[in-house]
Amino acid sequence: MKRKAILFMALCLNAACMMAQQALFTNQTPVSPEINADGSVTFRCVAPEAHKVQVVGDFLSAPAELAKDTAGIWTFTTPNALEPELYSYSMMIDGAVVGDRLNVYAIRDISTVQNIFIIGGGHADLYKVQNVGHGTVSKVWYDDKKAGISRRMTVYTPAGYEQSTERYPVLYLLHGMGGDEEAWMDLGRASQILDNLIAQGKAKPMIVVMTNGNMSQEAAPGQSSAGFIVPQFMLPKTMEGSFEASFPDVVKLVDSRYRTIADKDHRAIAGLSMGGFHSLHISLNNPATFGYIGLFSAAIVNHMPAEENAYIYDDFDGKLDALFGANPRLVWIAIGKDDFLYNDNTAFRTKLDEKGYQYEYRETDGGHIWRNWRLYLTEFAQKLF
Amino acid sequence: MKRKAILFMALCLNAACMMAQQALFTNQTPVSPEINADGSVTFRCVAPEAHKVQVVGDFLSAPAELAKDTAGIWTFTTPNALEPELYSYSMMIDGAVVGDRLNVYAIRDISTVQNIFIIGGGHADLYKVQNVGHGTVSKVWYDDKKAGISRRMTVYTPAGYEQSTERYPVLYLLHGMGGDEEAWMDLGRASQILDNLIAQGKAKPMIVVMTNGNMSQEAAPGQSSAGFIVPQFMLPKTMEGSFEASFPDVVKLVDSRYRTIADKDHRAIAGLSMGGFHSLHISLNNPATFGYIGLFSAAIVNHMPAEENAYIYDDFDGKLDALFGANPRLVWIAIGKDDFLYNDNTAFRTKLDEKGYQYEYRETDGGHIWRNWRLYLTEFAQKLF
Repeated sequence: MKRKAILFMALCLNAACMMAQQALFTNQTPVSPEINADGSVTFRCVAPEAHKVQVVGDFLSAPAELAKDTAGIWTFTTPNALEPELYSYSMMIDGAVVGDRLNVYAIRDISTVQNIFIIGGGHADLYKVQNVGHGTVSKVWYDDKKAGISRRMTVYTPAGYEQSTERYPVLYLLHGMGGDEEAWMDLGRASQILDNLIAQGKAKPMIVVMTNGNMSQEAAPGQSSAGFIVPQFMLPKTMEGSFEASFPDVVKLVDSRYRTIADKDHRAIAGLSMGGFHSLHISLNNPATFGYIGLFSAAIVNHMPAEENAYIYDDFDGKLDALFGANPRLVWIAIGKDDFLYNDNTAFRTKLDEKGYQYEYRETDGGHIWRNWRLYLTEFAQKLF
Repeated sequence: MKRKAILFMALCLNAACMMAQQALFTNQTPVSPEINADGSVTFRCVAPEAHKVQVVGDFLSAPAELAKDTAGIWTFTTPNALEPELYSYSMMIDGAVVGDRLNVYAIRDISTVQNIFIIGGGHADLYKVQNVGHGTVSKVWYDDKKAGISRRMTVYTPAGYEQSTERYPVLYLLHGMGGDEEAWMDLGRASQILDNLIAQGKAKPMIVVMTNGNMSQEAAPGQSSAGFIVPQFMLPKTMEGSFEASFPDVVKLVDSRYRTIADKDHRAIAGLSMGGFHSLHISLNNPATFGYIGLFSAAIVNHMPAEENAYIYDDFDGKLDALFGANPRLVWIAIGKDDFLYNDNTAFRTKLDEKGYQYEYRETDGGHIWRNWRLYLTEFAQKLF
C-alpha cells in the first residue's frame, strides 16, 4: 500500500506539472511578498525577459524599482520596517500595471484588483484571522419589494450563534459608492475585526448585516445575473432615496429570520461615505429604530434627484430634531483630516453643536480610504450595545 | 439640492482619479475579455512599453500573440467562436505570466490565480448566475474533535430554506488534493449549478456541504490563522484516514444544525480525485449512511501510511461487500478518457463487475480537470433523491 501511495502522489505531481507546462506557468518557488524578521518586506517577480519591474503601493510614495538577478528573478526590499497595517500594491512590468503573480491574495475595489498583505501588531492584528471563535458568514438573497428584484446581502452571525438560543443585537454596516455587499468583508476585514474584538471581550457578540446599497444591482459584480460585467463606480439608484425607503423592510426581514433583540437599543447602523449618507438618512426617517449611528467619512447632505422618494430627504432639520429628540445612545462621527468630505462634516457638526445635540467625534489622519474605515469599524464596534 | 448632488459626484470622481494617479493605475477603458456577437473572444492589454504580449488559456493549444495599436493597447481575437464553457487564462507580458488587469474575475486553483470568463449556452448556462431563486452560501466553523482544531466548511442551503419548515436531503461534496472548502464553490460553480438545476426542476432542493478534506488545515489559505501563506498542493493528513474517521461527526453536526432528512436515502456523498477517494472510503466504513455515492475522477485504492487510522483502509473487499450489500441507490463513477487515474478506475470497475455490483458509469473526453468535474456535478445532482 505504501508503494501505491507514493505512486499516486507521483502521478498527481506529474499531472500538475503537465498542466503547468501546458499553461506555461513559470516556476512559483520565489515568495512574494516576504515579510522579513526586521519588518521590511521583499517583493519578487519572475520576469527574465522584462526590461523594468516596479512595485506601486500604499506604503510607497513613488514606484520602487526591482533589481534583476542572473536567474531573471526581480527583487525589491523596502528600506524600512512597515508599520502594522493591511497594505495593497501592484506591480509594473515594462510599464504595464499587473498583479503580483506570486501572491494569491488580492482584493477587488470597484474595478481594480490589488494584492494585499498584512504587517501584524497593534490594530492590524485585528485584521488577521486569529485562532479564536469564528462567526458564520453567509451570502443571503431576499426579495427586495421596493427594488422589484431579488437582492443579496452578507450576514455575519457571531461564534456560538448556531449552538445557542440567545438573541443578539444587530449592526447594519453599509458600503460606499462603487461598493457592494462584499466590500466590508473583503476590504473592511469586518468578520476578522468582529471575531477578534468579540473574542477579546472588547465588543459584544452581535449580528452584522451588510446590505448592497445599489438598488439597481442584484448583487456584487460577478455574483448577479448581469454576469461578469466591468464594475462601475457610479450606478443608478444609489442616492435617490429608494435604498433608504426600502431599509425598514430589511430590518423586518432580519428580525424575522435571525434571533435578534428587536429594539432600538440593540440596533446600530453605520456606513462609510455613501453608506454614511444612507445611515444618516435611514436614521432620520426612522428615529425610533437605531440606538447607535455611525457616520464614517460620510457624505452628509448631497443626493441625486429623488423624485418619488423625495420625502426621504425632505425636512432635514425637522427630522434631525426628531432623531436627537429620541435620544440615540450614540451618534459617532469619524473622518480623516485629508478627506474631501472634511468640510461638509465640519459644517454638519457645527449644525449639531448649534442645536446642542450630543455626538462623539473622532478625527484621524489620512483621507477617504479603507485604512480609516477599518479603524472606524474597530472603534465603533467597541462602543455598541 | 440637485447642484449639491452633482458636486458630491464630482468630488467622488475627483477623489477616485487622485487615488488612481497616486497608485499609477492606467486607464481601464478597454474591455477584456470581450465576448463578441459571433462567439469569438477579444483580449486586450494596456502595455505601451511592452515588447511582447501573449495570452495563454485552456481554449488555446499554444500562446497567442496580441498585436499593439498606436495607443499601446494590445489585442487578440480568437479566430473562431468558442464552445459554451467556463474558460481560464492568463497573459504574458514580455515573457512574464500575469493576470489580465482588465478582468476583475479570477479564481485561485491551489497556488495559481487565473482569470475566467464564461461562454454561455448549453451546460455552461448552468455555470452562470441566472435570474432564479438563489440558495444561501455560508462559511461555517465547527470544532473538529478528531483534528483537535476548529475547521471551516461551506454550506449551501437551497432557495426557500429559511422561509420554510421543511427538511431537506444533503449532498456532501468533497474537493481534491490541494483544494479546500472553497474549491467546489469557486472552481466548481456549485451554487450556480444547484440554483439553476433546482429552478428548472431538474434537481431536488438539497443542502450541499463542502468540507475541507485537509485535516491539518483550519480553512482555505488566507482564511485561517496560518495567515497569507503560499498554498500547497500536498498537505499533511489528507489521505491517511483521519478525515474519513472524522466524517461521521460532520454528518452528526449537519443533522443537528440544519433541517435535514437524516437517513441514508436522503444523503449523498461525492468527490473529485482525492475527494472521490475520501467519498469511497467514508462510504465503505459507513455502509448504512449514504444512499448515493459519486466518484468523480476518483483516486481509488492509494493512500498514505495510515498508522492509527489503518482501520479505515483495512478489509477493502469485505467492506465493498457490505456497502453493496446495503443496496445503495446509486454508485456513480465518472472519469475522462485522458485521466491519469483512468486505468485505476477501470480496474475498480472490473472488480465491481466481477462481483456483480451495480453502478452507473460515465466516461467523458478530457482528463483530470474542473471542466469535467463541473459536468459530473451537473449530471450527478440530477440523479439524487
